Amino acid sequence: MDDCIFCKIIAGDIPSECVLSTEAAFAFMDIGPLAAGHCLLIPRSHYETVDQMPAEEAAAVLGELPALVKAVQTATGCKGVNVLQNNGRVANQLVPHVHFHIIPRNPNDAWSFNWPAGEYTGDHMAELGDAIRKALS
Amino acid sequence: MDDCIFCKIIAGDIPSECVLSTEAAFAFMDIGPLAAGHCLLIPRSHYETVDQMPAEEAAAVLGELPALVKAVQTATGCKGVNVLQNNGRVANQLVPHVHFHIIPRNPNDAWSFNWPAGEYTGDHMAELGDAIRKALS
Repeated sequence: MDDCIFCKIIAGDIPSECVLSTEAAFAFMDIGPLAAGHCLLIPRSHYETVDQMPAEEAAAVLGELPALVKAVQTATGCKGVNVLQNNGRVANQLVPHVHFHIIPRNPNDAWSFNWPAGEYTGDHMAELGDAIRKALS
Repeated sequence: MDDCIFCKIIAGDIPSECVLSTEAAFAFMDIGPLAAGHCLLIPRSHYETVDQMPAEEAAAVLGELPALVKAVQTATGCKGVNVLQNNGRVANQLVPHVHFHIIPRNPNDAWSFNWPAGEYTGDHMAELGDAIRKALS
């Protein structure tokens, strides 16, 4: 896509520190890292959000995830890793080209999130489960 | 794995609101949702963290991700979705069986994270890129 910064990075029109390149996938260092070693794994083809990706393309890209996470762990010596993928501005997506953040984690580091776990009442969970199964079928 | 709560859910020994079941993947409603419709996509086989998964198994599980995210969007009418996968206690992993959170998002909802983007100085990014490529090779 002409005006997509990640498509320009894949094309080499914008330089990047590439760490992985396959027929379907591309990964590079985030230049504004949440922690040293923060990488982005993206599809070569342009999709704005993950729900738009064909299943086989998601498989081809995300088959690279285990090895890339392991390599980031090895290279940085981090104690944990979060994988985060944001869809939509309300979900904090800034670049509209699917990207999986691989975020190294260590005690008392900078990135954090809350965990305001709720609970369902009545039949709400079962009703939503029905609706999700119906949408999948 | 005998003492894994997610393995017990897959086996049917603990009930769940299952929304997707394939040869490699299983997905069900999180009973402590960050938002209504919050689901977990997991491999049927037990791996503690994503780096331990064979590439072909990650591909088989995550090939389901686009359709599941789309179904959660359709069922809930949410405005965005975060996909989050935590590896290690420092990364807030509570259940030691790989799971991808699919978190519906809407304006002013409960879940949130900061974004303390840093920057590299000198050759640090290139050096880490070298180390990650070396670990991948």
